[in-house]
Amino acid sequence: MAVQKPSIPKGTRDFSPVEMARRNFILDTIKTVYKLYGFQQIETPAMENIESLTGKYGDEGDQLLFKILNSRIYESKNKEKLKNEFSKALEANSNSPELTERALRYDLTVPFARYVVMHQNEITFPFKRFQMQPVWRADRPQKGRYREFVQCDADVIGSTSLLNEVELVQIIDNVFSKLGIGVSIKINNRKILSGIAEYYGIPSERFNEFIAILDKVDKIGFEFLFLEFEKAGFGDIDLTELISLFKSSSSDEFKMFGLYLTTEKLKKQFQLKNIEIGLKGVNELEQITSKFNRTNTDFWIDVSDKNTLDIDLTLARGLNYYTGAIFEVKVNDPRSTFTSSILGGGRYDDLTGIFGLPNVSGVGISFGIDRIYDVMDEMKLFDTLNVQSSSTKVLFVNFGGDEEKHCLKLLRDIRNAGVNAEIFPDSSAKMKKQMGYADANKIPFVVLVGSEEMQSGKLTLKNMLDGNQTKVTFQELLSLIT
Amino acid sequence: MAVQKPSIPKGTRDFSPVEMARRNFILDTIKTVYKLYGFQQIETPAMENIESLTGKYGDEGDQLLFKILNSRIYESKNKEKLKNEFSKALEANSNSPELTERALRYDLTVPFARYVVMHQNEITFPFKRFQMQPVWRADRPQKGRYREFVQCDADVIGSTSLLNEVELVQIIDNVFSKLGIGVSIKINNRKILSGIAEYYGIPSERFNEFIAILDKVDKIGFEFLFLEFEKAGFGDIDLTELISLFKSSSSDEFKMFGLYLTTEKLKKQFQLKNIEIGLKGVNELEQITSKFNRTNTDFWIDVSDKNTLDIDLTLARGLNYYTGAIFEVKVNDPRSTFTSSILGGGRYDDLTGIFGLPNVSGVGISFGIDRIYDVMDEMKLFDTLNVQSSSTKVLFVNFGGDEEKHCLKLLRDIRNAGVNAEIFPDSSAKMKKQMGYADANKIPFVVLVGSEEMQSGKLTLKNMLDGNQTKVTFQELLSLIT
Repeated sequence: MAVQKPSIPKGTRDFSPVEMARRNFILDTIKTVYKLYGFQQIETPAMENIESLTGKYGDEGDQLLFKILNSRIYESKNKEKLKNEFSKALEANSNSPELTERALRYDLTVPFARYVVMHQNEITFPFKRFQMQPVWRADRPQKGRYREFVQCDADVIGSTSLLNEVELVQIIDNVFSKLGIGVSIKINNRKILSGIAEYYGIPSERFNEFIAILDKVDKIGFEFLFLEFEKAGFGDIDLTELISLFKSSSSDEFKMFGLYLTTEKLKKQFQLKNIEIGLKGVNELEQITSKFNRTNTDFWIDVSDKNTLDIDLTLARGLNYYTGAIFEVKVNDPRSTFTSSILGGGRYDDLTGIFGLPNVSGVGISFGIDRIYDVMDEMKLFDTLNVQSSSTKVLFVNFGGDEEKHCLKLLRDIRNAGVNAEIFPDSSAKMKKQMGYADANKIPFVVLVGSEEMQSGKLTLKNMLDGNQTKVTFQELLSLIT
Repeated sequence: MAVQKPSIPKGTRDFSPVEMARRNFILDTIKTVYKLYGFQQIETPAMENIESLTGKYGDEGDQLLFKILNSRIYESKNKEKLKNEFSKALEANSNSPELTERALRYDLTVPFARYVVMHQNEITFPFKRFQMQPVWRADRPQKGRYREFVQCDADVIGSTSLLNEVELVQIIDNVFSKLGIGVSIKINNRKILSGIAEYYGIPSERFNEFIAILDKVDKIGFEFLFLEFEKAGFGDIDLTELISLFKSSSSDEFKMFGLYLTTEKLKKQFQLKNIEIGLKGVNELEQITSKFNRTNTDFWIDVSDKNTLDIDLTLARGLNYYTGAIFEVKVNDPRSTFTSSILGGGRYDDLTGIFGLPNVSGVGISFGIDRIYDVMDEMKLFDTLNVQSSSTKVLFVNFGGDEEKHCLKLLRDIRNAGVNAEIFPDSSAKMKKQMGYADANKIPFVVLVGSEEMQSGKLTLKNMLDGNQTKVTFQELLSLIT
């Protein structure tokens, strides 16, 4: 076999021990908080039957699925038929089950809906599940966008209580406090957006287009919103009034303190034209946010000092299946330059309907691990939190022979005490190489056992941080590293 | 969209919260022990470039790869060319890069070799890595064999020291002790098998065939070995002598205590014909096993009481890349009927050579998670070890209104103390439903806060195990569940 220069597919990544330790720190933090709130973990297969996925993410989503070629296709007895199928599929620009029956999952939400329907008889509702697994998208790779990335979802399904939304906000607040990132937790409600669309007489088939423009405010600013609305033919509605409403909701003065002001204003407008869905949305928004209201002396719970809960009426979220509360999190920390969203979520009233189980309401969130990683990296939080790749506490230098034997006995006792420890495997390696190994792996202590140490029963302990060398008994060593 | 009856691909599985808790228990145990010995985690992408995988697992392995159809193939501008490529690929029974450039990883070993070569300048050798990720094989699914399953590997690369083999045996012993399964850790050495083949004049090109027959002894017994050897045309060598040697090595009397007897016998035979590789193999085997020898009063370390370290000269392991020590673990526990192997491993001298980095020796092991799960399930070890799907300690019944508000404050304090706790989200749900939720999720305590409890400051606590109901203060509750 010829020697190959190895590479990996575009948009995918290897994770080194340092990167893994950091990623695991983020994932473990989220997992701990999910469990703190009673969520239980499930996993689904990487591949789904292709018909479970197609049509769920729009036309673009269908094109971004990684499809898996049926196995043993080359050993088929009917190759003519296969060629035919392939030609037909190419011409029709659609898949043939003779060629591809499976695809890699595109997100965790659709597989979860499929799971709930398949296992509905084993599940006790409300079902609070979390799931942390990679997903795959054949997107054009670019900075911060990968073809394989881990999603980290929590959903409550089978409960319409707004307490679920409240607890999800608490989870978000809790996770980012533990990670050390200050954030703005943005909240809105799809029913309010539907109410506004109804208020301005926007036809329902143009609703998605309408909110897609709104969602851009973040990037383009309010100044260009007029233009965008006009370009799309929404120019004949009173945009000044509309925009003043939205603008006030996302301004700094507004935030939590302005809540009642704006919701009162909204309520009046909806009442004027008797727009029920809008009123319902305002009511839901009030019920959720009032639990966190700092000006209300009677508040129940609160977000932590570094974080804010902000109503943002321009928040729309791209996904069509949301029907109630919607969430988004942005970094709001003087130490970070990141502006992109690092969490999304919301309530959906009929996600499982497509798989045959209608009218099961759910609400969920999804942390963006890769972006959170980049934010923490920029803020040097991994150093602050002392996240290390190697968890080894002590390395024994290996001099071979009886010294090695002596070390193996000590090692056994250290490991029995639950402390991660190593001996350099090659006794022929020079001191410099062995110390270099401890250094490269950031192992804090090195122990040297020579003939002198074996006789005296004392060990030479080197602190790799300050370079100090001392003689200690085994018990002293143990109490130092446990 | 039409309603679909959902299903998942053959040979793949969903994991419920109960199954996840059990799988995580196994994976976390292994991870803890790997770290105890200084191994560091890495991850590689699910997809590899197809040329990194083909030719590495034999012809059968190539057929078992799950190949990924190039994305946006249906939107191609040159469909005629694609049709042509597909026809050619079908006729030649080999892949075309126009159709498939990527495949799902088949194991963790080849991606690890690729990783080491790609990152050789960042790695400090010896590199002790572990990796726990799913792999995919288009095998025919059957009981206990899946198309997606998690592998759980540890390897030391860049060190020829036999201390690595010793530590891997310790790791194996440690993991199965923690899991509560009694096992036989079988060890052999490929060099001994090469020596024996040389001794009997078996041509090197027939070596793999020779050891493949040997490896079957487990299943067919020594009686049929004669037949198999004769059928394969090895009948003209002195099989009686050969088999007596093998037989003694795997008999009960032999095991560790018979070690010196057998290795002495082997040594003499190899010395007689001056077979260097065989002598080297015996020497390696002695060096590793002598560290665990119970009859030797000077022993350094030992396997735990329930486990044995057994030399088995018929152990061959299928993979061609092994060149030194080989390992296999079988359940050896009166509570289990399982006979299949639950771990494999060995030393390889040139795994990275194919990717352009020759002469880097490594040694590794791989735990078979799915089989370990089945063994533990059969032995009811998950119950013994009290592995629960829900980690929630206490559920607050939700009566709504001020009572709910009161509970939310208590919940906040319980969670701040790090205890997993829940409130039933829907206040309109009947008591029976709320208690049923606690029951189904095996939540050990339920707290009821009614108007009486709010006034008295005492909570009603129900122990779900014995059904007892008591009044406790919040502090009493906290100390009970922390």
